[in-house]
Amino acid sequence: MTTASSYALLASENRAKVLANLASSSVTSGAIYLRGMPTTERKWTDCEQPFRQESNFFYLTGVSEPDFHLVIDIATKESHIFIPKFGADHALWCGAPPTVQETKQKYGVQHSGTVEDIPAVLAQINSSVSAKINASTVHVLEQETEFSALGAASTKTDKSALSHAVIEARMLKSSGEIELLRKAAKISGDAHIAVMKAVGRGTGERELHALFEYECFRKGSGPQAYTPIIASGHDGRHASVLHYVHNGGPLDKTLLVDAGCEWENYAADITRTFPINGKYEGDFKTTYEITLAMQNAVLAALKPGVKWEDMHRLAERVAAEGLLKAGLVKGDVTTLLEHHIPAIFFPHGLGHSLGLDVHDVGGYPKGVPRIDAPGIKYLRMRRTLVAGMVVTVEPGIYFVDPILDAALADPKTARFLNAEVVERFRKGVGGVRIEDDVVITENGIDNLTGWIPKEIADVEKLMRA
Amino acid sequence: MTTASSYALLASENRAKVLANLASSSVTSGAIYLRGMPTTERKWTDCEQPFRQESNFFYLTGVSEPDFHLVIDIATKESHIFIPKFGADHALWCGAPPTVQETKQKYGVQHSGTVEDIPAVLAQINSSVSAKINASTVHVLEQETEFSALGAASTKTDKSALSHAVIEARMLKSSGEIELLRKAAKISGDAHIAVMKAVGRGTGERELHALFEYECFRKGSGPQAYTPIIASGHDGRHASVLHYVHNGGPLDKTLLVDAGCEWENYAADITRTFPINGKYEGDFKTTYEITLAMQNAVLAALKPGVKWEDMHRLAERVAAEGLLKAGLVKGDVTTLLEHHIPAIFFPHGLGHSLGLDVHDVGGYPKGVPRIDAPGIKYLRMRRTLVAGMVVTVEPGIYFVDPILDAALADPKTARFLNAEVVERFRKGVGGVRIEDDVVITENGIDNLTGWIPKEIADVEKLMRA
Repeated sequence: MTTASSYALLASENRAKVLANLASSSVTSGAIYLRGMPTTERKWTDCEQPFRQESNFFYLTGVSEPDFHLVIDIATKESHIFIPKFGADHALWCGAPPTVQETKQKYGVQHSGTVEDIPAVLAQINSSVSAKINASTVHVLEQETEFSALGAASTKTDKSALSHAVIEARMLKSSGEIELLRKAAKISGDAHIAVMKAVGRGTGERELHALFEYECFRKGSGPQAYTPIIASGHDGRHASVLHYVHNGGPLDKTLLVDAGCEWENYAADITRTFPINGKYEGDFKTTYEITLAMQNAVLAALKPGVKWEDMHRLAERVAAEGLLKAGLVKGDVTTLLEHHIPAIFFPHGLGHSLGLDVHDVGGYPKGVPRIDAPGIKYLRMRRTLVAGMVVTVEPGIYFVDPILDAALADPKTARFLNAEVVERFRKGVGGVRIEDDVVITENGIDNLTGWIPKEIADVEKLMRA
Repeated sequence: MTTASSYALLASENRAKVLANLASSSVTSGAIYLRGMPTTERKWTDCEQPFRQESNFFYLTGVSEPDFHLVIDIATKESHIFIPKFGADHALWCGAPPTVQETKQKYGVQHSGTVEDIPAVLAQINSSVSAKINASTVHVLEQETEFSALGAASTKTDKSALSHAVIEARMLKSSGEIELLRKAAKISGDAHIAVMKAVGRGTGERELHALFEYECFRKGSGPQAYTPIIASGHDGRHASVLHYVHNGGPLDKTLLVDAGCEWENYAADITRTFPINGKYEGDFKTTYEITLAMQNAVLAALKPGVKWEDMHRLAERVAAEGLLKAGLVKGDVTTLLEHHIPAIFFPHGLGHSLGLDVHDVGGYPKGVPRIDAPGIKYLRMRRTLVAGMVVTVEPGIYFVDPILDAALADPKTARFLNAEVVERFRKGVGGVRIEDDVVITENGIDNLTGWIPKEIADVEKLMRA
């Protein structure tokens, strides 16, 4: 007999959270329907792509198999998982397919069937004695467009309630989810350390990219949570491209590694930046120290009740102080902030929610707008922090050619810049980013990635070894 | 100044081949339109997926960048490559975008522009003095569904001619294409050898899968041409599942590795099967020898003018001889073949065309049906071989539970089986497959992967080292 997987237990908790959120919106009857990720092929070919479950479906089922479907009876809170109809050739090509009975046990649900059973199950839910006035509604996610499995019920779909209920549930991670994030962080962190150690062997960006993925995958990770950024070369200029993914240059002076894998679909998102020769020096060291100060200030300030956009502003303030001290900018901190001068060097958001997706859902609740100002306009979240949220804290200081050229050419910004010092830094330093993944706790944070060396002395010691 | 890449020269040859094929079908004016692969994200997220160009577009352009378009003026044979409109933020996030002028030079085409220029260019082609009666036609691939870039010309698309012209061109590889396939085979073959050497270190399927990808990727390969099959474990039963991709078991007795990477989008597809302890013995050795004899017979017979389905039948004949000698079946070869007995053990096709796609286009020309018989019904190609075709030769002998159970239960097949011997083999042997990639030449073949050890003595020697 198959026993329920630990992911099934997690999914059961998650379904309860979503049902509670729906109840708060007075949705207490009808059905929920989610379609799992289908099998996909490379465009116009029969070349099957590696399977990765759609995150919402995994959240509510724990299923990592293609072409499944989920129905939940909202009134009774009972769940149904539906498997596809397998062809006669399936066993030959793909092995014995799962059965309905195994599926029910493996995923710990009350009912299971094949996809063809869905219309009958929905009809039954709609006609049940517990059904209320809106019992014939099938709640689906806002993005869903494929209802062919629903039969007659496909005319009764309702997108008004489910997405909000799922997003708000996913925003607050359970202890079980946090352990999966911790495992993703552990494997990814060990891979970062392997890359730091390999740098001295004189390989290029591509080999280190390959090494990072190898170190994750051989330990059983899922896919990378995003395409790794392995940015060095040409005086470190690659690191001035925020999403540099070419990863084909030689190693030259500095290396920025922004990479993380998934563990059971939960993501890590980690950045370290270090010198190829293992010794932080000169303008690069100065840039690194500013970035580390920005991160440490935010990590010390994080706790429930804090607004995320204020954390971004805190990072900007610390950046302004550091840029002043380095002689890159002139004026006073308040004026620099008023004129968005730190955003010239820190042109992206401080961080984002992390979970089943690397940029997890729910950054902007309905009605909360982006802030229309340099840098902070890219902030991927505006929320008041609550225990159970998981966020990345990823300040950076960069010397980005088009931004610097524009800032030096515009009198409104040029007057705050020491052009000579800016030019000196941009010749030698591409950019620095330091990124950790942290859980907001009752009292502060649990940093899932703080153990990966980032203090200058710690990185230098590791690279010497 | 950017100079044209070698892939651009290859693409120029390819366009000439396609235009010649169109001319053979009396299509000598109008335009060709192909849409390149767009940027794609993981479902319902902003997580950008690794880019892989659509094969037909790469064939005709050499472009490996997202969101490009191609128009060819059929009458003048001049080509236009169109780049997307890049947003103001592109340089910050992704680096300096390509320009129209760079694109023209890099890809060696007569004209370039942005996507917004396509309608005007099509109008110009349609109104040119060289235009014939059907000049206002835009020839597109049969599978194409997205014409929004064409503007008014989107009503003039014609799917009748282009696909055939491209498929027949892609079927016959140029010397330049063969060198790319050879490079994919070289990197993949070296990765196979690395896996053979690593088996003794006692790792599992997953670690060897990771190692294979690492060995390819660190040398600059593209993605895997298909999900690797790393099948061992449980008395070798994983290898009895033809497309086993779980790759999560321990190493046990034997290992089947079916894996190949891409080099500049050209695929390798290679299988080797070997004993974990480095010594071919007993029923596994017997099964291996039958498979190798099947492959060697086909490799010796391949040359222009031979029908591919006859090569499948030759492999079946050699299988029948081997199965008889091994005592697995009884009767005479002709009767066994008449009753499709070899297909019980060799239940898939002999091989397929290989090129930009692992199962390359054009296996079945229009009007050529599949052969409705066990095993051969899965054959992915029916063609008379011509020099320049590239095919895989991948016979196998397997002990597949559902097939054997059915064959032993059916008197029509059971009378040819020695049940006791079959049961003995299936306990110890999952399956064996040996797969090479060969070019059909004027006189025979050029085996791109024959250098990867497969003779018993060679594999054993390698694994001892």
